[in-house]
Amino acid sequence: MDLLARVAATISKAGLLVPHETVIVGVSGGPDSLCLLDCLQRLDYRPVVAHLDHQLRADSWDDAEFVMGVARDYGLPMVIERRSVPRGDGEGSLEERARQVRYEFLARVAQERRCRAVAVGHTGDDQAETVLMHLLRGAGTTGLRGMLPLTPLDRLVRTQESVGRALVRPLLEITRQETEAYCASVGLKPRLDPSNRDPAFFRNRLRHELLPALTAYNPEIKDVLRRMAEVMAGEADVVAACVESIWPDVVRPAGESGLALLVGPLGAQSIGVQRAVLREVVSRLRPDIRDVGFEAVERMRGLLGVEGAPLRQTVVGGLEALRTPDLLVISVPGKPITLPEYPQVTRDVARAWRVPSAVRLACGWRLTAETQTLTPGRRRSLGRGDGGRLAAFDADRIEGGLRLRPPRPGDRIGVLGMQGSANVADLLASQHIPRPARARWPVVTAGDEVIWVAGLRMAHRPRLRGTSRRALVLRLLPPLKDR
Amino acid sequence: MDLLARVAATISKAGLLVPHETVIVGVSGGPDSLCLLDCLQRLDYRPVVAHLDHQLRADSWDDAEFVMGVARDYGLPMVIERRSVPRGDGEGSLEERARQVRYEFLARVAQERRCRAVAVGHTGDDQAETVLMHLLRGAGTTGLRGMLPLTPLDRLVRTQESVGRALVRPLLEITRQETEAYCASVGLKPRLDPSNRDPAFFRNRLRHELLPALTAYNPEIKDVLRRMAEVMAGEADVVAACVESIWPDVVRPAGESGLALLVGPLGAQSIGVQRAVLREVVSRLRPDIRDVGFEAVERMRGLLGVEGAPLRQTVVGGLEALRTPDLLVISVPGKPITLPEYPQVTRDVARAWRVPSAVRLACGWRLTAETQTLTPGRRRSLGRGDGGRLAAFDADRIEGGLRLRPPRPGDRIGVLGMQGSANVADLLASQHIPRPARARWPVVTAGDEVIWVAGLRMAHRPRLRGTSRRALVLRLLPPLKDR
Repeated sequence: MDLLARVAATISKAGLLVPHETVIVGVSGGPDSLCLLDCLQRLDYRPVVAHLDHQLRADSWDDAEFVMGVARDYGLPMVIERRSVPRGDGEGSLEERARQVRYEFLARVAQERRCRAVAVGHTGDDQAETVLMHLLRGAGTTGLRGMLPLTPLDRLVRTQESVGRALVRPLLEITRQETEAYCASVGLKPRLDPSNRDPAFFRNRLRHELLPALTAYNPEIKDVLRRMAEVMAGEADVVAACVESIWPDVVRPAGESGLALLVGPLGAQSIGVQRAVLREVVSRLRPDIRDVGFEAVERMRGLLGVEGAPLRQTVVGGLEALRTPDLLVISVPGKPITLPEYPQVTRDVARAWRVPSAVRLACGWRLTAETQTLTPGRRRSLGRGDGGRLAAFDADRIEGGLRLRPPRPGDRIGVLGMQGSANVADLLASQHIPRPARARWPVVTAGDEVIWVAGLRMAHRPRLRGTSRRALVLRLLPPLKDR
Repeated sequence: MDLLARVAATISKAGLLVPHETVIVGVSGGPDSLCLLDCLQRLDYRPVVAHLDHQLRADSWDDAEFVMGVARDYGLPMVIERRSVPRGDGEGSLEERARQVRYEFLARVAQERRCRAVAVGHTGDDQAETVLMHLLRGAGTTGLRGMLPLTPLDRLVRTQESVGRALVRPLLEITRQETEAYCASVGLKPRLDPSNRDPAFFRNRLRHELLPALTAYNPEIKDVLRRMAEVMAGEADVVAACVESIWPDVVRPAGESGLALLVGPLGAQSIGVQRAVLREVVSRLRPDIRDVGFEAVERMRGLLGVEGAPLRQTVVGGLEALRTPDLLVISVPGKPITLPEYPQVTRDVARAWRVPSAVRLACGWRLTAETQTLTPGRRRSLGRGDGGRLAAFDADRIEGGLRLRPPRPGDRIGVLGMQGSANVADLLASQHIPRPARARWPVVTAGDEVIWVAGLRMAHRPRLRGTSRRALVLRLLPPLKDR
């Protein structure tokens, strides 16, 4: 099968382009991108030539002029730009930053031309080099699966223009040598970028030193690496499907930018599933992190096994991990988190709180209030309400309107059966409740008096007595189980 | 944490040994195995020293004598044997054959001493080398996950003694250098096997040439490779769980040593799942194949997409693949296969076949026979029985006892509505029925006459006429759907 037919097969098999689609083509002027351009043109797509001059070399503008000439020869629209690569401030190598700038440019051109797809000339050789590079650097499986024939552009670059657009790689099953032979056969004379030989670039050392050395161990090494990427990509799909199917059993939302892992159910899964779920959690909270490292995942996994007092630490990508008795909460720092296993006030309920009624708390918790006329039997059953999930007061001793709110600094409660009063903040801290949960703990006041720290302690003064005629009954109800 | 504590941790984490267990220890005399022996002894297990002299070197018996001395010094029981490695007859390298002989020996010693476990001194360095070796050779994922801390011995060697026994590797998280330092610190003077330097062995070239070269790209390369093995092992578990859960939806048994893949349901799964199911099918039929290569799996996967006439070919490990319209049957050649989508006779039914009755065929198919007294309405409805799933005959023209059997050479049938007779074998072949299904196709005879090639053609002579008073009705019933 000739090269053109193979490229067409890749495009159709992976569903890269629709017939006659207008597509932005990143053209450097080298054999890969020229081969790609010529193929797309012959296969009756509508290429738009895009070239970015990074100004990394003194003569780089010559490449731009060469590409302009090519686009003119083909009679194709073109977008040529000069843009320097921002200086590194500790964020990745020069290669990485140049790549970022290039994708931003391509995404912007795609938006301007209203195109869905951007095509680039990555070959099977690039694939082998990518896999080897990830392998040497110790990337996770995401790295080992190499480049995919189709990648959402917003996974590669975080700009508005990239959303909903795709990067496609129609030459992923073609070798670099084949693109060179193809160019020669159709009379194209590509420019060779001298920086492709610069051993300062890690990739060039792989290409020109390590890969040739590895052929001494296996002459088919490039095929082996490409195949590995294919196997990994396939397995990644299996793992992703598995994670999706168990997700509702092991993860709960926890506020604006947080996810709570259920320690018990997740711990019952296999190690591989635990790792995959943790990677998915990180990638949902920090979609810009391209590959979550093994050590980072293992550190988080280690937190699943920790027991005892709440534990808070920073994990990968600046995310915060909070371990409570039943949960491991991963969240973006500074964003409020909600902990499904603790009752949490979402808003201050004052005048709106009538009796009887039920107030919704976060994550399915509820707090109800009602008044009951007391009979001896009822009094006995309410007598057991000791400030836990049920609190009963002498309704005639409740002074002022009821209010439900989070604790405030200086809040004190005269605890039932005890002399004097306790500081509410100390009381919450002494129960080993994690700090974010303490900050939004439901506190019920009547007038100026704290009468209930929900689920924990009720006030002494308005307590139910033998002589009480009516009771105010407050109840804290946990979320209904989903299954 | 010192080495002894780390070994203890590996043993307990992976559940390798129970306290005080008697365990066969393969001792070569090198630093790894001496370190292992000393650790197991100090951790209060009961080691039995086992050493096999392969006679691969002239001075190899010196190693054996050295190991004997060590065992004596520790006061431990020992088993020392000489055995030459069989000459290669195309089955693997010298290393591979030596390994095989060694595991056979260890399994046998374990049986003689009634031990469950055999411990060997594979270190983290061996793990890194193994992963790199599989990687270079292009092994499947099974290879990339490297050595596991615990492997059923019968996965490594096919002898009766290996069944139910385990190979354990307590040093998998220790480096080779650490075992050397440990030996020095406890006053052990290991022997260094000169063949560990012989560049004729692939592994030695990796150890002494390639791995040092790779440290120029990443000084932590060994850790990277070890970690990769861990990730792969975890993912392999996820994939295995996924395969297990969909197995009943995509695979059916097909005789003694065959498995039938349901082309439709399997094709609807992701590529990764398809690959994993195919690998599992091969490994159930040929448990001795340690690693099914990528190309072999892809070739089988290619057969899922093939349409048209039945197709038969040899796939990995000499297994046969047979593609029928709805199935891909993989089987051990020479063993009878049963194809769930075709009716298949399991036994010859002659005298036992009474009317009315139902006879079970393979895979849930059934064949029923009954006699009906004819009314005009019933005659009309039976008239549609054209030799397909329903065949109706004039019961009074059936001569001799009914019999159900596979076709025999020379069988002929006088086909309803046609002149002369047809050869049954030709008739089956002309229907594109795969050969194994033809061989066991249900044929009904009465006396010497073939009256029905079930589901296909009925005989002309005993056909139902307007004057018939009683009908013999035969029905071929497909398996009930399971869902």
